[in-house]
Amino acid sequence: MEDTKRIIVMENIMDENDRISIMINEKLSSHGFFAINVLGAPGIGKTSVIKSIISRIGDTKCYVVEGDIESDIDTVALKNLGIETVQINTHGSCHLDAPSILSSLPDFKGDNGGLVFIENIGNLVCPAEFNIGEHIKMLIVSVADGSDKPYKYPLAFEKADIIILNKCDLQPYVDFDEEYFTSGVRALNKITPIFKVSSRGQTGYEEVITWIMNRRHIL
Amino acid sequence: MEDTKRIIVMENIMDENDRISIMINEKLSSHGFFAINVLGAPGIGKTSVIKSIISRIGDTKCYVVEGDIESDIDTVALKNLGIETVQINTHGSCHLDAPSILSSLPDFKGDNGGLVFIENIGNLVCPAEFNIGEHIKMLIVSVADGSDKPYKYPLAFEKADIIILNKCDLQPYVDFDEEYFTSGVRALNKITPIFKVSSRGQTGYEEVITWIMNRRHIL
Repeated sequence: MEDTKRIIVMENIMDENDRISIMINEKLSSHGFFAINVLGAPGIGKTSVIKSIISRIGDTKCYVVEGDIESDIDTVALKNLGIETVQINTHGSCHLDAPSILSSLPDFKGDNGGLVFIENIGNLVCPAEFNIGEHIKMLIVSVADGSDKPYKYPLAFEKADIIILNKCDLQPYVDFDEEYFTSGVRALNKITPIFKVSSRGQTGYEEVITWIMNRRHIL
Repeated sequence: MEDTKRIIVMENIMDENDRISIMINEKLSSHGFFAINVLGAPGIGKTSVIKSIISRIGDTKCYVVEGDIESDIDTVALKNLGIETVQINTHGSCHLDAPSILSSLPDFKGDNGGLVFIENIGNLVCPAEFNIGEHIKMLIVSVADGSDKPYKYPLAFEKADIIILNKCDLQPYVDFDEEYFTSGVRALNKITPIFKVSSRGQTGYEEVITWIMNRRHIL
């Protein structure tokens, strides 16, 4: 009985989330904004990837919505670089949901479109289940965390539109089996591109940006 | 109204979980077993830490309960080393709970006590909220994942009885501010020891084992 009640409550929450997600996506699109839901485990380098992309993006207007359980460490760092950033603290909740994004979106008046990066809570599980108005999901993984992640956390890899393999500067010092990793991704997801970058060494980002800008114009 | 219903359902689930957790703990204790709930983000090295401890533990009987969303990669690896291991696949759920442990515990007949390692789902958020019958919580973190984790994911650090700082062989190649990390831990948790290890280099484990064996005899 408890389980049935739980399932009904969860279904209602997911339906409501999806309804609001579509509303957000329409609002963003109507203002010419392309939104990227940035997913990945804690410490994988989500903020570093966002910073690296924005620093190379030229004149395109960029916003960041920064999701954290607690703290505003990344928001402070992004604002110090002159990047317009909104903080969402979930105070315990392990993912962002559409209602929290709806109430946090910047006022786009006077803007002519651009990119909105939504950095999700550091978690390779739950955030993949919730649409939050994004146009694409960008999944960040790292060579330091082993090559078996697609096998153990399939949903995030299945749903990703672009995969960033970060911390490639550490590859000589860790046991990362790239073939095994790629096979795992391809078993779940035939087409999503995998880009190898190092945020510390600032390598590999040109290809990422070309892909994002092309994808933005296709959608 | 939806929120109220959700809170009531969640409270009932947590109460039931705690009741079963106490039951498991009593059962383990009565058989002389000391259970360690192993927490940490995906790819942080939870299985490697467990393997490294067990390989040095001498004659003490050890079991592993291996929690994964999908796959039995770690269970196969542990069994290949002759370690008795039980697999739990949660198929989507982001944490282990007490009912899943209750139905998975080995039959302890004929045993004279030992250690039970329960490797939780790779997630620095949700598993910290659920007691699963353990005597202590062991939190694994890594120098490759940045020094701000205690500030961003406080609950896991607050609840940890022992913290293992893994992948210390990578310290020369990453930006890990140890003082900032330790200050963050100490703001949440005055007493929990922090042990620096490298599972790849097999360093730092003697102190970890001494601490576990002492703690086992105190409780």
